[in-house]
Amino acid sequence: MSKIFPVVLCGGSGTRLWPRSRAVAPKPFLPLVGDSTLFEATVARASDPAIFGAPMVVTGAAHLDHVEAQLGDNPEARIIVEPAARNTAAAIAAAALSLPDEAVMLVCPSDHYIADGASFVAAARAAGRLANEGWLVAFGIAATAPETGFGYVKAGEAIGEDGYRVARFVEKPDLERAMQFLAEGTYSWNGGIFAFRVGDFLGELEAHRPDIAASARAAMAGAKAEGRRIHPDAAAFKAIPSDSVDYAVMEKTSRAAVVRASMGWSDIGNWQALHAARPQDANGNTLAGAGAGRAELVDCQNVMVESDGLRVSVIGLRDVIVVVDGDEVMVTSAEGVQKVGKLTGAVNQ
Amino acid sequence: MSKIFPVVLCGGSGTRLWPRSRAVAPKPFLPLVGDSTLFEATVARASDPAIFGAPMVVTGAAHLDHVEAQLGDNPEARIIVEPAARNTAAAIAAAALSLPDEAVMLVCPSDHYIADGASFVAAARAAGRLANEGWLVAFGIAATAPETGFGYVKAGEAIGEDGYRVARFVEKPDLERAMQFLAEGTYSWNGGIFAFRVGDFLGELEAHRPDIAASARAAMAGAKAEGRRIHPDAAAFKAIPSDSVDYAVMEKTSRAAVVRASMGWSDIGNWQALHAARPQDANGNTLAGAGAGRAELVDCQNVMVESDGLRVSVIGLRDVIVVVDGDEVMVTSAEGVQKVGKLTGAVNQ
Repeated sequence: MSKIFPVVLCGGSGTRLWPRSRAVAPKPFLPLVGDSTLFEATVARASDPAIFGAPMVVTGAAHLDHVEAQLGDNPEARIIVEPAARNTAAAIAAAALSLPDEAVMLVCPSDHYIADGASFVAAARAAGRLANEGWLVAFGIAATAPETGFGYVKAGEAIGEDGYRVARFVEKPDLERAMQFLAEGTYSWNGGIFAFRVGDFLGELEAHRPDIAASARAAMAGAKAEGRRIHPDAAAFKAIPSDSVDYAVMEKTSRAAVVRASMGWSDIGNWQALHAARPQDANGNTLAGAGAGRAELVDCQNVMVESDGLRVSVIGLRDVIVVVDGDEVMVTSAEGVQKVGKLTGAVNQ
Repeated sequence: MSKIFPVVLCGGSGTRLWPRSRAVAPKPFLPLVGDSTLFEATVARASDPAIFGAPMVVTGAAHLDHVEAQLGDNPEARIIVEPAARNTAAAIAAAALSLPDEAVMLVCPSDHYIADGASFVAAARAAGRLANEGWLVAFGIAATAPETGFGYVKAGEAIGEDGYRVARFVEKPDLERAMQFLAEGTYSWNGGIFAFRVGDFLGELEAHRPDIAASARAAMAGAKAEGRRIHPDAAAFKAIPSDSVDYAVMEKTSRAAVVRASMGWSDIGNWQALHAARPQDANGNTLAGAGAGRAELVDCQNVMVESDGLRVSVIGLRDVIVVVDGDEVMVTSAEGVQKVGKLTGAVNQ
């Protein structure tokens, strides 16, 4: 089988892990779980040269320094520097237009955590085989809870042993439907990981969103290379209609497939998700950050402390997260994590 | 009536309000409630020259800078600089030996909060009248809860309209007894505030603890004045047996009286007590410190935030105290406040 080319998407800044994740140092570039950053781990887990080609990163100028510092020195790696954020359909189209038509691309968000890298690679190979057969493949993440914050994908009939036709994609459900999905067994989370043969993706984009396809072609026809960087034509790129690859292609194509994967995935979408992804002690407590060694927890359960330096001492709390970063201290209940992004400090950073 | 001479005791460092209160900047010298420090407020509430004489402060060398910075410029004020901490009997004896025998002294801890200064003055005048009749007078603080952290004093038969004979002093009770005391009605908290005629106090000390009396006399006979400061003889002072005035005198004398006072008293003995003493918003929340203006509370009830600068953002908590001071962050449940003093940071400061 030909190689699979990772396309790593580094967009958005995110405020849900504020104050640790900030506009100037956003989530993908922080060592949130273990010693590697989420971006480094994303690149590393698709780096076996027997399977994967050189990575292509799609990012904005704001994150370019982080990307170049963390990408490693693979001379074949490329970085597409988006002149503006135009959502995932445009980002993936720009990457596709920089690869040969016959290549298989594996689209990977850079801000997710995957505990089981071997399962990821196995799923990527299965997805690559399906893509080589002309399928547009979504990863279906094995659902472990009735999450209402994710989209779902329902598996239809099997396609050999590697995956299934997509019966349908479902928008973020309410809790009742999410519980039905979990019980029903054929639904999994849409994790935003996709495998396509480049020519097939561009053909389906052309068929369903010719406006996006045409403006993306114009942007990449005028692109300029600068070392490993690729700079699309700014005016043309900014003219690309903004849409997600889910809406623009996956929900419209008749060739959508899903590879179901159970690989310890988390989108680390809030502080509670990060707490769950980190190793915990017998009381469910977690200490992280440069100040972790000085932290002290007394009579605490399911408490996570992350501090970049100050000592944090906590007494008698349960299901609470304490984050100290620079000039910000954030303390929240586990239930309160959804509101972190709306705090004044997060909004005004 | 002759004037009442305030004797302000500034001993101990205290760890229960750590990290705000520290060895180098202890509780009496911090503006914990309102703009005045507890020490300043203690001096101020006994400063009406029609009633009170100049204050005499008893403190150690460690706190001398704070005392002199906050005492004001009354040229008649005196500061006894203890060469070592020898508990309250020694401190009060040193002050007594620096005042005329006929003077009435009013012993005041410097780390308590009293909301109702007028009631304090009224109680002080009543205590002063009883002291002038030869009574050794304790203030009995109207108990508002079955506190197990305070000693209690039981009122016996009335002495005119000003107070009562002390039926007995009671050590810190368990909860069951504390609840009985509260229901019974004749018990009040022993707040460590006392009024004595100097000669009577020294006579009772001589009678019950001649060792303390003799060594205190030796220490003060060798004292040296230095401006407003009085330096007892160090070797002699260090030889004074260490004991509380309660044990050494009040529980032994047959002339103990109690003046009952309801004056919004708090010993600010822990963070929860400080929370209760401070003004709260409609949700029971309190913000304090230089960083208070930047703090943000979302979905919080009975939460107190004190920060010396960093912004503190809190979501979804109830009955929690967050303190940021220098390089320390302390977060505790209301129930956990009793353990603050045992935190590593508090112990090792």
